[in-house]
Amino acid sequence: MFKAQLKSETLKGLVNMISTLIDEVKFTVSPEGLSLKAVDPAHVAMVELMVESGAFESYEADETELGIDLDKVKDVLKLASSGDIISMEQDADHGRLIFKIGNITRRMSLVDTSSMNDVKVPQLKLSSTVKVPVSELQRGIKASESISDHISLIAEGETFELLCEGDTDSANLTLDSSSLESINAPSRVSSMFPLDYFSNFIKAIPSDVVVEIELDTDYPVIINFDLAGDNGKVKYLLAPRIESD
Amino acid sequence: MFKAQLKSETLKGLVNMISTLIDEVKFTVSPEGLSLKAVDPAHVAMVELMVESGAFESYEADETELGIDLDKVKDVLKLASSGDIISMEQDADHGRLIFKIGNITRRMSLVDTSSMNDVKVPQLKLSSTVKVPVSELQRGIKASESISDHISLIAEGETFELLCEGDTDSANLTLDSSSLESINAPSRVSSMFPLDYFSNFIKAIPSDVVVEIELDTDYPVIINFDLAGDNGKVKYLLAPRIESD
Amino acid sequence: MFKAQLKSETLKGLVNMISTLIDEVKFTVSPEGLSLKAVDPAHVAMVELMVESGAFESYEADETELGIDLDKVKDVLKLASSGDIISMEQDADHGRLIFKIGNITRRMSLVDTSSMNDVKVPQLKLSSTVKVPVSELQRGIKASESISDHISLIAEGETFELLCEGDTDSANLTLDSSSLESINAPSRVSSMFPLDYFSNFIKAIPSDVVVEIELDTDYPVIINFDLAGDNGKVKYLLAPRIESD
Repeated sequence: MFKAQLKSETLKGLVNMISTLIDEVKFTVSPEGLSLKAVDPAHVAMVELMVESGAFESYEADETELGIDLDKVKDVLKLASSGDIISMEQDADHGRLIFKIGNITRRMSLVDTSSMNDVKVPQLKLSSTVKVPVSELQRGIKASESISDHISLIAEGETFELLCEGDTDSANLTLDSSSLESINAPSRVSSMFPLDYFSNFIKAIPSDVVVEIELDTDYPVIINFDLAGDNGKVKYLLAPRIESD
Repeated sequence: MFKAQLKSETLKGLVNMISTLIDEVKFTVSPEGLSLKAVDPAHVAMVELMVESGAFESYEADETELGIDLDKVKDVLKLASSGDIISMEQDADHGRLIFKIGNITRRMSLVDTSSMNDVKVPQLKLSSTVKVPVSELQRGIKASESISDHISLIAEGETFELLCEGDTDSANLTLDSSSLESINAPSRVSSMFPLDYFSNFIKAIPSDVVVEIELDTDYPVIINFDLAGDNGKVKYLLAPRIESD
Repeated sequence: MFKAQLKSETLKGLVNMISTLIDEVKFTVSPEGLSLKAVDPAHVAMVELMVESGAFESYEADETELGIDLDKVKDVLKLASSGDIISMEQDADHGRLIFKIGNITRRMSLVDTSSMNDVKVPQLKLSSTVKVPVSELQRGIKASESISDHISLIAEGETFELLCEGDTDSANLTLDSSSLESINAPSRVSSMFPLDYFSNFIKAIPSDVVVEIELDTDYPVIINFDLAGDNGKVKYLLAPRIESD
């Protein structure tokens, strides 16, 4: 059983982020809230998120699973205005999720989750941590487009840098204590990532969010942040591109 | 002879609606006003409209006919700002209609009307009548897109429903006395219509209009409304899709 | 050596106009300012511009040349908000121009100018002169689209006219002293120009600019205007289409 009401902005934020990785996902439902672990088809990026019941306007649920086609949810979200409340209710008999927005009812068939593998998110301990407004990263990404397919993240001392180097041209964004919330980089760390993955995910994060970046040389980057007050937690991992010499 | 001035919004509203059916039309001109009967090439939808001289800022005309390419009129409308007055004058010698917007003059060749058949609009007496703000229908259509190619209109008692059912998913909008201006449905009536026709026409109606829907089971739907105060009347008919069992 | 700071709007205005003609250009740099002469690949249109050092927020330069790919500069401009200052500095050792916008650094390889021919702008003395807000020309162009590939400019007495004539349709914009800043047309002059060239350039001019048009029968049209206060001067020449009888 699952029955909940959620602000349309919150649902939109979640769907936009997850759909940068994958279209069909399995939400694990419990009385405490919704959670999800997903990996993109190429196994380059992972997202793990938890939305506690407190993030919802109302929430009632047993243990269950919901297989959802995010493209369909995007269509539902187009029917909502900012501030609208979206009701969702599982119709277990017909394998559907029923959305209600005002006087509109949208019955959506659930996706079979039996073929969806459980995703194992690796536990990593990385040496550097940077807290930065995501809007800064969004600007740095914009500067990098059409220069190269890769972007390097570099932390050293009090400075965090996004660097994109092509054959002849380069772009970089250098952030210091005037832009960063905090930085802890005991030694210089640097990793290179596929720009399209990094860009799609970072752009999907609401621009007023502050993210925590965990970074190490030639390790995945981890991006952590809260949604819906403190009631939602998102962890995103992106595999590095390791250059052979 | 035909010489008239019209608010650009009024002309835009007319052109947008008619052009959902057909590109080239014949307007019948008389001293009392303009009228038009048109059917789409597949004979699925019809529109009949009358714009009385009182809808115009100024109006002078004899009995005549004007064959007009609506795509060209749309180009003219792009030159007008909201509130602009558009002057139109027939140049019978050159077979043209001359539009003036401020200091711009646009001479447009008229289309030969001799091959355009007169359209007979059937007189129907349908059992149910619903008055509803078109903005509600526009919302219901938005919910129906990408679910099915057909939409059902259902009236029963105090309730009017738009229902779109696909193989696995469905969307419906249920309107009661809190959203309807009035409803008269002595018995349950239900008909199914092609969504693209219904959607294109309903979306072209200015969103502050209240429409009157006449409905019966497996009959065409009739949509009536006024434009330009009470000086313009539009009647739209859309053929049902009748399902064989 | 070249090192300068410029408002992003000023750079954007210049780049948009020049890029209607050609993608890669050679700027001639001197202590007094930047200048450029460029012709489009088909030799139909030319632009000559001078931006004096006073147009810049700061300016330091020797005699040098900068070969620039305008598409890349457009990408840089997307990073700037209105009111931002863009810093540019030549890195002669690496053949690059370094742009800085806030904490973003964009290193751009310069284009080899050795194969770019010097452009000779012909000195013409034309009989008629019209001063007109470019916003009026922009409206006239909009009315001409989809009618013909050519547009005629006509000056006579107190009247300046844009005329676009197709096989059956026509559009014209007639401007008199109520719209013109000034006109000097001792005798009737008329020339016809390719609409795409004229349209692309006129649309790229900021809409609050007043342009001076020099015109003669079957001669190129010259369009002069100032940018950045009086510190920038632009001259644009467009070859006429001369009809053979």
